[in-house]
Amino acid sequence: MNQLWKEIRRNPLFWLLAFVPVVFVSHQLKPEAHTLLFLLSILAIVPLAGLLSHATESVASKTGDMVGGLLNATLGNLTELVIALTALRAGQYMLVKASVAGAIVTNTLFMLGASFFLGGLKHHVQEYNRGSARLQGGLLFLATVALFVPSAVSQADTATLGNFTQKLSLILSVLLVLVYGLGLLFSLKTHHELFSSAGHAEGGEAPWPLGVALATLAGVTILVALVSEVFVESVQEAAVTLGMTPAFVGFIVVALVGGAAEMASAFSGALKNRLDLSVGIALGSASQIALFVAPVLVLVSYFIGPSPMDLQFWPGAVVMVLVATMTALFVTNGGRSTWFVGVLTLAVYLVFAATLFLLPPGGP
Amino acid sequence: MNQLWKEIRRNPLFWLLAFVPVVFVSHQLKPEAHTLLFLLSILAIVPLAGLLSHATESVASKTGDMVGGLLNATLGNLTELVIALTALRAGQYMLVKASVAGAIVTNTLFMLGASFFLGGLKHHVQEYNRGSARLQGGLLFLATVALFVPSAVSQADTATLGNFTQKLSLILSVLLVLVYGLGLLFSLKTHHELFSSAGHAEGGEAPWPLGVALATLAGVTILVALVSEVFVESVQEAAVTLGMTPAFVGFIVVALVGGAAEMASAFSGALKNRLDLSVGIALGSASQIALFVAPVLVLVSYFIGPSPMDLQFWPGAVVMVLVATMTALFVTNGGRSTWFVGVLTLAVYLVFAATLFLLPPGGP
Amino acid sequence: MNQLWKEIRRNPLFWLLAFVPVVFVSHQLKPEAHTLLFLLSILAIVPLAGLLSHATESVASKTGDMVGGLLNATLGNLTELVIALTALRAGQYMLVKASVAGAIVTNTLFMLGASFFLGGLKHHVQEYNRGSARLQGGLLFLATVALFVPSAVSQADTATLGNFTQKLSLILSVLLVLVYGLGLLFSLKTHHELFSSAGHAEGGEAPWPLGVALATLAGVTILVALVSEVFVESVQEAAVTLGMTPAFVGFIVVALVGGAAEMASAFSGALKNRLDLSVGIALGSASQIALFVAPVLVLVSYFIGPSPMDLQFWPGAVVMVLVATMTALFVTNGGRSTWFVGVLTLAVYLVFAATLFLLPPGGP
Repeated sequence: MNQLWKEIRRNPLFWLLAFVPVVFVSHQLKPEAHTLLFLLSILAIVPLAGLLSHATESVASKTGDMVGGLLNATLGNLTELVIALTALRAGQYMLVKASVAGAIVTNTLFMLGASFFLGGLKHHVQEYNRGSARLQGGLLFLATVALFVPSAVSQADTATLGNFTQKLSLILSVLLVLVYGLGLLFSLKTHHELFSSAGHAEGGEAPWPLGVALATLAGVTILVALVSEVFVESVQEAAVTLGMTPAFVGFIVVALVGGAAEMASAFSGALKNRLDLSVGIALGSASQIALFVAPVLVLVSYFIGPSPMDLQFWPGAVVMVLVATMTALFVTNGGRSTWFVGVLTLAVYLVFAATLFLLPPGGP
Repeated sequence: MNQLWKEIRRNPLFWLLAFVPVVFVSHQLKPEAHTLLFLLSILAIVPLAGLLSHATESVASKTGDMVGGLLNATLGNLTELVIALTALRAGQYMLVKASVAGAIVTNTLFMLGASFFLGGLKHHVQEYNRGSARLQGGLLFLATVALFVPSAVSQADTATLGNFTQKLSLILSVLLVLVYGLGLLFSLKTHHELFSSAGHAEGGEAPWPLGVALATLAGVTILVALVSEVFVESVQEAAVTLGMTPAFVGFIVVALVGGAAEMASAFSGALKNRLDLSVGIALGSASQIALFVAPVLVLVSYFIGPSPMDLQFWPGAVVMVLVATMTALFVTNGGRSTWFVGVLTLAVYLVFAATLFLLPPGGP
Repeated sequence: MNQLWKEIRRNPLFWLLAFVPVVFVSHQLKPEAHTLLFLLSILAIVPLAGLLSHATESVASKTGDMVGGLLNATLGNLTELVIALTALRAGQYMLVKASVAGAIVTNTLFMLGASFFLGGLKHHVQEYNRGSARLQGGLLFLATVALFVPSAVSQADTATLGNFTQKLSLILSVLLVLVYGLGLLFSLKTHHELFSSAGHAEGGEAPWPLGVALATLAGVTILVALVSEVFVESVQEAAVTLGMTPAFVGFIVVALVGGAAEMASAFSGALKNRLDLSVGIALGSASQIALFVAPVLVLVSYFIGPSPMDLQFWPGAVVMVLVATMTALFVTNGGRSTWFVGVLTLAVYLVFAATLFLLPPGGP
């Protein structure tokens, strides 16, 4: 417990934890102050995501390579998953789907682009293992194709397609989860040497003892769930007040909030000239969203949602995700990076964000 | 003749030849048993395609490099061509187009994916010549772009576009056949050294004498044509009975049946750790469909079809073909393969197949 | 002046300069002979573009690396810019947008394809620096994504989207110009060594003295502007007479005319086995159209056009530009080229041109 406390004091990010109680108190006192609650819950989720990430890595580092890798791979996007589950239970499927697509776009364009940019400011040309980047980029491309191309193929009037979409989404989800399982077998067991350098473990921070880590994991997950509830409840009306479209909130805001902790790791890797780490986190996390988070949400929606969720994405989301994935493939293809590659990748992200921000609410 | 007989006895695949007479007898006795005839004709075409493939290679091996290469390149997809010609004469343009698009998708996703998977089960990491894979992948990409992008550009109501589509398809076909001719000049004459390792010839099987091979080629082509007629006649009603959409039959069933012989060669190459062979067959055969089979069908439709066929594909087919081609480019880009790359490529194929299977019949 | 005259006599291309006065005289005498004026103005623009290009390089070579590079990068597409500005002032936004998209497609498919083809006829296999080709291809891909994907995302009925499109186009333009500025900083200052071999300077021609060059630059720009006015005025009716769609004129004719001078440099580089030069000109010029010419036209339209221009492109143009950019990426990926790669790239260009030529006028 002492160690957890030390960590919190050392890292200014964790000072934001003060917002966690503030969220709950405000929610009790002013349940209708949606914009305030929306902003407070964002400020509270960011440090919680950081704690979750560090706790996962601590447990992973204590449990050996196989179980540890499994934990890292499965809980790496826990924050995104908890937020999405909360939105799912509230029946906000549009927000859930936008956050799935947005997490992939944000990881591949913003996380990768900012890593290249920050790393490139400090280092003239950065080299990294292009073999492993190509492998991960290829996996990500195939994962997003499997998840998004059915939406592109079946774009017709959704009224008559309802039943078709639902059945296809269920089959797709089962298939993707199976592939995800085989992917774990591949990256943790049969071919783990290909992924060696892409581990999440940061040299700088010492792992916590197992007890502290497990307790943190459990406690913080509950806190994230509780704060997510305030977030999901307030997001719709706050978006209207702040002039943001629902597509923008799901795609950009939720994705940035949920991925804050991983971004911190990726950027720190880039500054230390360890771009393999940054590329691994960005592409690996995006693959995990496509192969694990998305299908799990569909399967869980049969139990906790008001009605089953499908995997039919709006055309604009399909285009953005596929373009983002191809961009990631192309920019990592050569195994070299400079600051301007980062600028261009970030520019594509900004273009997407501006498009979503300005899109008339009736759009998607 | 003795040799042909020996071959047939030695290879269990050829035992399926027994279904050839069964098809004809059943067709005489029960012309309205569509589902039975459909299944029987599939079982009969697979071994015939195998004989055709072996006969082509035998003739090719006897006639020197240039003529042999020309024969292999032109007759490599003879089964697909004969089935498509039969469907063309019957005016089933939807089936013809679906089988053209499906053959490209099946070659690039299923044949390539299963080769990677099967090879990867036996060999930890398989390396192959990435220079030649890139060249072939690039040719395939350009071929499919030339064939499919006009459909994407001119997606409007086809009623008013009828005349435009027909003229464009004719110009396109002439252009593609010219490019195909130049491609033969390139791969057989001016730059044959770049393609050396991608020959179809299998070390294991001895070539037949020229007379046997030519007679087999002629006789089996006629048999394929006759069986195809039963197949095309029965496919529509059988599909309804079996709950398959026409899109699924053309895209998946016809493509798998027509390509069975080449798949056998590709998989055997992969198991022998000769992935160059597998990649060459898969990408080369897909290129040939786009540059030769498709335009020939359009040109021939002016003579044998009820009305000229055009090259306007439905949007979903365009998306799937272009995504499949890009997938082939990306996965072969590094010149290395493991079993999980095969799993992912097969997963994309399964996703496409599931989409087509569930698509409401009115869809495409 | 003597030197300018020598240059003109030496190079048969410049004999076409005789058409410049012919255009003006014909316009005075027969202002309604649209087809004649259209053809004459094309013949007059080509040599003017050549002079402009040579003058820019001469000024650049006299002013040191930084300023010279800046000039080359900014004035490299001066002809295209002047033609587009003239069309902009006349309110022909459809022509302006088609020429922007067409210039990118023509540079990446025709200029690159013809360079590969011509070079390949003379040299068996041509190798070039694939690192720098990949970098430039990646930049081009990102630039076209930023410019064109918003059109793909916001494809809905443009009536209700008018205001949205206008705002987005303005933001996009400012962003692209900023990125262009950072790109100059990158390629001329912080990482100029990566671009060293892609300079426009031709060994064969001696630079002119600064005074001659500056005077030529100023005078010829005015001449291009004046001829462009005749061109833009006559193009619509001439297109109807010659049976060409407006889309074809903008995409193909204007792009070929405007880029004639650069093409001459690229082809001459390819024949001298300096494909680095050809690839650099083709990809660099296409990037410049996307990052500089297009946004400048939008920004300028607020001052000189009848109403502000937006960056909403029709779906077919978006597909063609993105496919062309990816084609450029794939064919330059390996750093090797042969004549058949050129044939295929040119075939894709011909397919696009035929599609646009046949497209019913109401199409785009």
